[in-house]
Amino acid sequence: MAEISSIGEFGLIHMLTKDFKSVNTSTVKGVGDDCAILDHSGHKTLVTTDLLLEGIHFDLTYVPLKHLGYKAVVVNLSDVYAMNGTPRQITVSLGISKRFTLEHINELYSGIYAACEHYGVDLVGGDTSASVTGLIISITCIGDAEEQKIVTRDGARDTDLICVSGDLGAAYMGLQLLERERTASAGMKDFQPDFAGKEYILERQLKPEARRDVIEELQSLGIRPTSMIDVSDGLSSELLHICKQSGVGCRVYEDRIPIDYQTASMAEELNMNLVTAAMNGGEDYELLFTVPLTDLGKVEQMKTARLIGRITKPELGAYLVTRDDAELEIRAQGWNAFNR
Amino acid sequence: MAEISSIGEFGLIHMLTKDFKSVNTSTVKGVGDDCAILDHSGHKTLVTTDLLLEGIHFDLTYVPLKHLGYKAVVVNLSDVYAMNGTPRQITVSLGISKRFTLEHINELYSGIYAACEHYGVDLVGGDTSASVTGLIISITCIGDAEEQKIVTRDGARDTDLICVSGDLGAAYMGLQLLERERTASAGMKDFQPDFAGKEYILERQLKPEARRDVIEELQSLGIRPTSMIDVSDGLSSELLHICKQSGVGCRVYEDRIPIDYQTASMAEELNMNLVTAAMNGGEDYELLFTVPLTDLGKVEQMKTARLIGRITKPELGAYLVTRDDAELEIRAQGWNAFNR
Repeated sequence: MAEISSIGEFGLIHMLTKDFKSVNTSTVKGVGDDCAILDHSGHKTLVTTDLLLEGIHFDLTYVPLKHLGYKAVVVNLSDVYAMNGTPRQITVSLGISKRFTLEHINELYSGIYAACEHYGVDLVGGDTSASVTGLIISITCIGDAEEQKIVTRDGARDTDLICVSGDLGAAYMGLQLLERERTASAGMKDFQPDFAGKEYILERQLKPEARRDVIEELQSLGIRPTSMIDVSDGLSSELLHICKQSGVGCRVYEDRIPIDYQTASMAEELNMNLVTAAMNGGEDYELLFTVPLTDLGKVEQMKTARLIGRITKPELGAYLVTRDDAELEIRAQGWNAFNR
Repeated sequence: MAEISSIGEFGLIHMLTKDFKSVNTSTVKGVGDDCAILDHSGHKTLVTTDLLLEGIHFDLTYVPLKHLGYKAVVVNLSDVYAMNGTPRQITVSLGISKRFTLEHINELYSGIYAACEHYGVDLVGGDTSASVTGLIISITCIGDAEEQKIVTRDGARDTDLICVSGDLGAAYMGLQLLERERTASAGMKDFQPDFAGKEYILERQLKPEARRDVIEELQSLGIRPTSMIDVSDGLSSELLHICKQSGVGCRVYEDRIPIDYQTASMAEELNMNLVTAAMNGGEDYELLFTVPLTDLGKVEQMKTARLIGRITKPELGAYLVTRDDAELEIRAQGWNAFNR
């Protein structure tokens, strides 16, 4: 009897789906990218789904329900933007244990609706059930895109430039802060958590946004990425997805990785390795993409993203080039729910 | 603080969704039918989703994982057929607790794939995570339909005929049997459950099918139902959905309700009311539909469905006419996970 943690989430998905053959002509692309791609009389539909479980993905002792609802939607929208698409509809399924009241569920939905409104997405269905323990949130998002605009993970080519939006590691450090304060408050009644000067990393953890603005800036600059993925499991893991699926290698430069001041300061306070947090922290929901070398001038104008490296031939492997010019092999530490 | 069970699943869905306004032109119909309807350049896409939770919807002490996987797909396909559509793709999200091994998950997937193959559906995505306790299955199905063929719940009109496919109450009696044998076997090592002569009701509970054949027969006879819904929560509950959404009343005749011999015999053995089981048992996954009175000749030819009643003016209410001509008001007992 083999334990699931022995092969991890990606291994499990591979094992379960490798032999499946599609039979419908409308199925353009199945498992293996941020979204599935469906064809409806020439129109392309994108589909993605995420499951969020209490005790695994969130802890309600420090996550407000409204923020949780907002984030649960955002993580799905992020997958549609990562295909260069526009999210249109979501379905929301909830499993709700007895400790939740109507007021709780209204609070959760106020966050779901806030995200729908902000991103112009319609809630079109779902399923609602009691659960034995804890809160279960399963959201599916449907989006669309013009065929020639869709960007998958497999189009990166040698000499392409690698870019990433925003900054990395902040959501992870926000989580570390929340867990520290929770531990510190254990058993204390009037505990006041110390969040001053750390608002940014908290917001990145509790209320992330999907990078629609990055898609819009790419569009306005006339850039069509050769590959794209959203950073949910950490930069390392996503870089390896692009390298594997595109059949290429990469060099990413440590001194180019965007890190916010609060992320760095929190890492120092907790005595944690900052680069590890930025490379493997996860939950950034930034967009990682590659562009042809000829777009260098254009990406240098971007306000929402920056250049962090370049695509190489596959035999050169995937490496992080440190400040002192050492090359560290990039490994998919990522976020593995099965190893927690 | 209000308990969720005080308003039930339908009340909860209404409370959460009543104020939502769609913003995308592609959203044709949101919450409130078997599927949402999306428009993609004239092509209609159907979307439905179901959440199945261990300890609420299934009990692995008597449900084989392969059957569970099959059923989890079927309950979604049933919703697409209930719109007179064709299911095309599914996404499958799983939450898996530590007691499950790779072999278990392979077993579950073998059932999922068996259903995909049988119904010609493609698995195109999903999400996989550890769970704190139990197995969580969230499936979303995407289908399509020609616009003029889609059948919703709100088109039934006075004098329409009411039909239902197959027979009712069998899945519910199968569940009663399984629970009886589980109780009887508690603590016994070599217990042999007594299932002889009860294969049909067991199969209806453990491995239901979605009624694609009914859709095909309707098509071949040139019948377009005026309204349709699948029977998942019990005939009473579904009749009331059609009456409410169509703004009509109904009369259903007890002596017309299709009940299998094994269902009747099991009800007698367990000293349970047979009509209650057939009207409120749930999990039948049959199709309940209405047709214009002028289609009487055609529905009488149907092999997969039979006439059980007629639609009336709304002021006449919704009643079951018993064998001795008494009229019993139909109430939505249905299946309410929040009251268990």
